Amino acid sequence: MKSSHKNEKEPEIITNKNQMRKWSRAMRSQGKTIGLVPTMGYLHEGHISLIKEAHKLTNLIVVSIYLNPGQFSPTEDLSTYPSDFDGDIQRLMAVPGGVDVVFHPYNLYDYGNSSVGGDSEVEKKGAVSCVEERGLGHETWVRVERLEKGMCGKSRPVFFRGVATVVTKLFNIVEPDVAVFGKKDYQQWRIIQRMVRDLDFSIEVIGSDIVRENDGLAMSSRNVHLSTEERKKALSINRSLSRAKFAAEKGQVNSGELRNMIIQEINEAGGRIDYAEIVDQETLEAVEEIKSPVVFCIAAWFGKVRLIDNMEINI
Amino acid sequence: MKSSHKNEKEPEIITNKNQMRKWSRAMRSQGKTIGLVPTMGYLHEGHISLIKEAHKLTNLIVVSIYLNPGQFSPTEDLSTYPSDFDGDIQRLMAVPGGVDVVFHPYNLYDYGNSSVGGDSEVEKKGAVSCVEERGLGHETWVRVERLEKGMCGKSRPVFFRGVATVVTKLFNIVEPDVAVFGKKDYQQWRIIQRMVRDLDFSIEVIGSDIVRENDGLAMSSRNVHLSTEERKKALSINRSLSRAKFAAEKGQVNSGELRNMIIQEINEAGGRIDYAEIVDQETLEAVEEIKSPVVFCIAAWFGKVRLIDNMEINI
Repeated sequence: MKSSHKNEKEPEIITNKNQMRKWSRAMRSQGKTIGLVPTMGYLHEGHISLIKEAHKLTNLIVVSIYLNPGQFSPTEDLSTYPSDFDGDIQRLMAVPGGVDVVFHPYNLYDYGNSSVGGDSEVEKKGAVSCVEERGLGHETWVRVERLEKGMCGKSRPVFFRGVATVVTKLFNIVEPDVAVFGKKDYQQWRIIQRMVRDLDFSIEVIGSDIVRENDGLAMSSRNVHLSTEERKKALSINRSLSRAKFAAEKGQVNSGELRNMIIQEINEAGGRIDYAEIVDQETLEAVEEIKSPVVFCIAAWFGKVRLIDNMEINI
Repeated sequence: MKSSHKNEKEPEIITNKNQMRKWSRAMRSQGKTIGLVPTMGYLHEGHISLIKEAHKLTNLIVVSIYLNPGQFSPTEDLSTYPSDFDGDIQRLMAVPGGVDVVFHPYNLYDYGNSSVGGDSEVEKKGAVSCVEERGLGHETWVRVERLEKGMCGKSRPVFFRGVATVVTKLFNIVEPDVAVFGKKDYQQWRIIQRMVRDLDFSIEVIGSDIVRENDGLAMSSRNVHLSTEERKKALSINRSLSRAKFAAEKGQVNSGELRNMIIQEINEAGGRIDYAEIVDQETLEAVEEIKSPVVFCIAAWFGKVRLIDNMEINI
């Protein structure tokens, strides 16, 4: 992905919180608006589409690249989460209009007097848990209590707490006017929207449409871990969602029937369902019959890779 | 408390969130710094001392007056909490230097589609619980998980969640540079400090010393509910704290002995102890022996009034 077009803009890389805030405040005092695209790195076309969305809305773009330990439980894949910082910068330089700042902190948590602490230690991925039992380490968490409960919240109990908290931190550090999130992480997007409303952040939260590979697989940094065979099986997710959507639009409004269709198709392809739910687009509460806008949400395992995807149905 | 000195400054009263933020941003763009003093109204000399403290640090002062339903449980005294808005404004006008803005919102919570909602409804104190079981009402809470557990957190389980959440909201609306809290609410002060650190608010949190009546009773809006007799009994709190402090400074470092002294004195005066603890000033963990800076914290009932008080011991 290396390239050297003359019009490529090299982003300023900022690793320090205070420097980041200083930059934002300087820009705001010049009347500039700032868009934030929070990421965990290993950027793909899905991320790029978020940046393009932000470009429509603000003068300046900050992309944060931070693999947030606070949203992984000890048994999850923090240690194997893919990363490629240099490649990410190349990809960002290729985006039309570029990005102004990459905010890339080593660590955003205060570990107090605990033995985990220190930036160098924290950089060793996998060794980190920012949840301390005692002492002066990080202990403040933002919880969106209803929306965080279902779907991904069931199988990943600390996930949304970690997401809402790190996004709060990023909001307070970057102080953007707009933040763009992918609708692929539908529940996350709704949680951040609700959090922004409930905590009175002066930030517009934008949900950006899912970007898919040519074969229909929703783009995800985790796709890189799929074997060729698993990847082929994983297409059952998008296929089953499309079929269910088609059926719903043709008049099948019974959620149970639609869910069964989806589950059967993914199971037959060799996937292991974590959840397949048809929920209200705002409350994320399961519906029995589709009478208003809903979203079909799926999480399924293919080998050791857990994938999520969803499709909105606006009938 | 009416007065009409020529040099009194009338504060601007702002009730709308967006207007409040607009004011702050306009001031900041002029290079002014803003101090916030969050209150629930019924202002007394303790509050005034917080404003004086803020005056030392910032160009402009915002006092928020908002009786936060989110920090009261249904069984607590939201409905009888005293208020006197006109008197509060008079008191603020008498403060040297005055205050610039009184932020006095009717309601800071979004009740979604629930039946509780609506500003007018919310104004009826006592009818309000902002914790909804379902629907689109407020559901985001900030929790400082370790510090919120002990002392007042034990007998008031939703209290600090409500405090941390409303303070987050006020911080996001007012966007101050400095916020001043009273050390009378010691646990609250430490929780806000920790929250600001953990969530990367760019706000300096100041703890201001307890202000006492001439007879030693810590100033509190709730003191007005004490009968003459109860008030006399309540002096046992400050008296016992002072004695325990004196004993500690003379070499009594056993927390158990000191606690017993305090408990006995308050019990004998007719108070009912909620808690009497000797804790580390930062972690708020109970200590058995005083070896480093601690604080004696007390909550006790006199009749139907629950009072809190504390004293730092720096040995």
